[in-house]
Amino acid sequence: MYRAPVDEIAFTLNHVTGMKQALEAGRYGDLSADLVDAILAEAGRFAAEEIVPLAKIGDEQGAVWKDGEVTMPKGWGDLYRAWCEGGWNGLAAPEEHGGQGLPMTLLVATQEMWNSASMAFALCPTLTQGAIEAVEAHASEELKQKYLEKLVSGEWNGTMNLTEPQAGSDLNALTARAERSEDGSYRIFGQKIFITFGEHDMTDNIVHLVLARLPDAPKGTKGISLFLVPKYLVNDDGSIGARNDVFCASIEHKLGIHASPTCTMIYGDGRFGEEKGAIGWLVGEENRGLACMFTMMNNARLAVGMQGVAIAEAAYQRALAYAQERRQGRAPGASSEGMSPIVEHPDVARMLLTMKAMTQASRAITYSCAHAIDMARLSEGDEARHWQERANLLTPLAKAFPTDIGVEAASLGVQVHGGMGFIEETGAAVLYRDARIAPIYEGTNGIQAIDLVMRKLPQSGGDHVRGFIKELRETAERVRGANMAELADTGNLLIESLDHLQETTDFLMSQTGEGAMEKALSGATPYLRLFALAAGSTLLAGGAVSASDAKMASLTRYLAENHLRETAGLRQAVIDGGESLKAAASLFAA
Amino acid sequence: MYRAPVDEIAFTLNHVTGMKQALEAGRYGDLSADLVDAILAEAGRFAAEEIVPLAKIGDEQGAVWKDGEVTMPKGWGDLYRAWCEGGWNGLAAPEEHGGQGLPMTLLVATQEMWNSASMAFALCPTLTQGAIEAVEAHASEELKQKYLEKLVSGEWNGTMNLTEPQAGSDLNALTARAERSEDGSYRIFGQKIFITFGEHDMTDNIVHLVLARLPDAPKGTKGISLFLVPKYLVNDDGSIGARNDVFCASIEHKLGIHASPTCTMIYGDGRFGEEKGAIGWLVGEENRGLACMFTMMNNARLAVGMQGVAIAEAAYQRALAYAQERRQGRAPGASSEGMSPIVEHPDVARMLLTMKAMTQASRAITYSCAHAIDMARLSEGDEARHWQERANLLTPLAKAFPTDIGVEAASLGVQVHGGMGFIEETGAAVLYRDARIAPIYEGTNGIQAIDLVMRKLPQSGGDHVRGFIKELRETAERVRGANMAELADTGNLLIESLDHLQETTDFLMSQTGEGAMEKALSGATPYLRLFALAAGSTLLAGGAVSASDAKMASLTRYLAENHLRETAGLRQAVIDGGESLKAAASLFAA
Repeated sequence: MYRAPVDEIAFTLNHVTGMKQALEAGRYGDLSADLVDAILAEAGRFAAEEIVPLAKIGDEQGAVWKDGEVTMPKGWGDLYRAWCEGGWNGLAAPEEHGGQGLPMTLLVATQEMWNSASMAFALCPTLTQGAIEAVEAHASEELKQKYLEKLVSGEWNGTMNLTEPQAGSDLNALTARAERSEDGSYRIFGQKIFITFGEHDMTDNIVHLVLARLPDAPKGTKGISLFLVPKYLVNDDGSIGARNDVFCASIEHKLGIHASPTCTMIYGDGRFGEEKGAIGWLVGEENRGLACMFTMMNNARLAVGMQGVAIAEAAYQRALAYAQERRQGRAPGASSEGMSPIVEHPDVARMLLTMKAMTQASRAITYSCAHAIDMARLSEGDEARHWQERANLLTPLAKAFPTDIGVEAASLGVQVHGGMGFIEETGAAVLYRDARIAPIYEGTNGIQAIDLVMRKLPQSGGDHVRGFIKELRETAERVRGANMAELADTGNLLIESLDHLQETTDFLMSQTGEGAMEKALSGATPYLRLFALAAGSTLLAGGAVSASDAKMASLTRYLAENHLRETAGLRQAVIDGGESLKAAASLFAA
Repeated sequence: MYRAPVDEIAFTLNHVTGMKQALEAGRYGDLSADLVDAILAEAGRFAAEEIVPLAKIGDEQGAVWKDGEVTMPKGWGDLYRAWCEGGWNGLAAPEEHGGQGLPMTLLVATQEMWNSASMAFALCPTLTQGAIEAVEAHASEELKQKYLEKLVSGEWNGTMNLTEPQAGSDLNALTARAERSEDGSYRIFGQKIFITFGEHDMTDNIVHLVLARLPDAPKGTKGISLFLVPKYLVNDDGSIGARNDVFCASIEHKLGIHASPTCTMIYGDGRFGEEKGAIGWLVGEENRGLACMFTMMNNARLAVGMQGVAIAEAAYQRALAYAQERRQGRAPGASSEGMSPIVEHPDVARMLLTMKAMTQASRAITYSCAHAIDMARLSEGDEARHWQERANLLTPLAKAFPTDIGVEAASLGVQVHGGMGFIEETGAAVLYRDARIAPIYEGTNGIQAIDLVMRKLPQSGGDHVRGFIKELRETAERVRGANMAELADTGNLLIESLDHLQETTDFLMSQTGEGAMEKALSGATPYLRLFALAAGSTLLAGGAVSASDAKMASLTRYLAENHLRETAGLRQAVIDGGESLKAAASLFAA
């Protein structure tokens, strides 16, 4: 069913993100455009031919828990190992540890494909990727030597253990504890919930990265340390040793991503030996765990954003195929005899175009974020700071907007199928179910909006965001001046939306004094959507002009004329809405 | 968990729809306001205390098919019979056949409650209600005597058999056939799909209303007749006779409403006897079946709209309760020590207010539609025509907008719960699953939009819709002139949205010549949403002023300042969007 959208991805890489120029300028070393194409083609093949056929059994059987062990759906272990053997797990990992050291832009392009094929499958490597980054950046040389190669090959997978029942988004409330041992290791105790792939039978070992508090740690988030806790201890020769004191007490019964085990993990209750406490090793410094965790979290947020893009793409492809096949009624101006394919009915075409345009706008934002991460890594000094700030700014946009679009597109995808969409066997409903988690995990989209307003707008005293908006304006002017009939009035509509972005940005940054924070927080969610709509549309239009791509121009015009003026309403919600929100919220005081 | 929102419903009945004035003017005979209150209170009690406790088992066990028979979840048969004994099934049915003859407004209020408690449960009586209306309006006296009383009591349930695999929305393509028998009955042959409660074990008999073609019928929709086909034939003394030649070949495995069996029905394959053909009786005239079916369909569309309201309300109540309980982080300006209930975080409050405000706007539209149906029935001549046209105009709005809101609110409801929302046991996810069918069945929301533009706007040469917009303007002026601080600038915002409604209505009605239909169809969906937003907000604000209800005024202001300017974007999509849609849709020609 799924075909990797290599044209759309290539368009985004080459004409939206600036990767093409960077490639041509030799910024990526000896990486060539041909190699990029070859990688994308092979990833697309693997996703479509190897993963897709096992996606359905994954949803139907799901991961199954029994006595602390989790059995994966039939065929998934082999699939995972074949995928690792293809070298996909280490695509962006350091070469010195067996990775391929390829850019983040390529990583997200492949992530998109894995997730379109099966979001549940793609989750395991996504978490491993985060673990690799944290260990690479913060762990001791000894830990790196012991764990990195296996994590990079995918022989072992990694997990992130933040959440506890009383501490979801708020890490202040974290209570898992760590005790120092004499040999320099630590003993970890506590319960963690919502641990993705915390237990399963696809790998020989599982490497947990766990946040916990030392006995003498300060209160709050400044007293949190990060520990590496393997399921099985690892001998000095790299072989698997004794079972560590951590186990999976249960997995959740979820709306979607059934084949991704969501585990409750118990550390240190003495189940596997006399002595209690899961043995762990410090990653980074004591009490500085949060900084280490953020290394994992930023890229994880982008990866979740890719899930949104991926689900939207998959939903679009399914809906389009159905709409081209299914015949009902006669479309206005239908040329053929008899019933028309429903794609010819304007309201069906509208749904499909909305899905496609929003998907492409999401791609523009996420891939631009990945490009900024690459450029930050490849640059130094002011240039590196510029790109790091760009990546920081785009991360909440790249996480929240595409995952909202994922839900909206999956919902439209069901709708295009009519009654068939509600039948599980059709394959549209599972996307609607899977999509729903992405706006929630890795920081809810509400938290992303707060991050955008409270932490990202103030970067460099506001200069960074102002510079970005200026760039967008220049692009919009270029679109307005371009001689492409397909764009019609798009340039002016972009500028209008960028005016809204400018006004709301100024409004949020100018809040001071009492109630300032509340006002900023009240407007954060509509502001994020406004930002993403204006930026995504502008990036897309700029790409269409650069590439002289008539089809993409036509799609962008559809987006601008049918959806972009949503920014007028969002602008109002940001600027005027806060007071009425506060007034009406008193309803809840009861 | 669920508490019937009797205050919100009473507000809508008394201050939005005009039911209060009609009651006071004696239009409803001896129905008193006290009786209305008593009925609503008892329905709320039954929904919360009797239905809610069985909703979860309904979702988990679902309806189970085996060898042509369908077993309902544990306890559902008793629940259904208790519900019927309460007289709820015949609430709006004619008194001469055992019903209570109460108004449609009360029926929809109770429908809302049943559906909030369990959409799957409420579906069975919804279909029976449609069957009662069709038989009452079109069947022979003999059929009425034989079937109506049992349908009204709920002892037997009714079904609607339209859809065939090749004929979903397009009844032209219908192929089920009927042959005349010598005794005046007919023999029915064919396959019907998506038949809600087509088979189950809660009643002694099932009365199918089936669309089929006679051998000499004209092609297209003018050759369709409606037949009553019971599962068991009924003897002259009213007792159950032989099994008829109809059976359930399978039920669907669906995303939601698991306890509502969605059946494939086979008519006339000779499974239960020598002679083939399910015995049926004509309802209405030969080849005029569609007109009879519309009798069922119009009110069924309103009933589905109530499902949207109901799911949105249920999702809101769950999310609010969770947000008042769950503590995370510190809200700005938090008064209490420690972590704040998340309802105090502005972005969570925003989600909850959006849910509540959109639910209340949906209520305003649906209950107004029900009131128009009542008034049409209670009036004569021009007045009756006026109210019938009002009901006709509001029906597509009442079906489509609330069901879209149902999906949006259920999605927000999951989001408010964070990670817990994705866990099935929490109870938010099932609403998200159930909600998704309502925009599809009884005519997709796209078809509702087409119906609105192509059939409802032209009523009385456009005078009816113009009159309605004029009424709304008067209400908005009243809101603007009202001395309620809680409303702030709401009046002006309403007028702005009504300007958009006016402009788009004029635009759609002025399309003539080549491509006119395509333009109208292209804009239909955004037009419907624009119409519903503007009308729903205005009706709500008018009610708040009439009732001097500060809380409702505050909620309306939130709606106006945060969501109403969406109409600016929708206006653009209707007026400018069609051309770009057509241009971009050429992408799909491949």
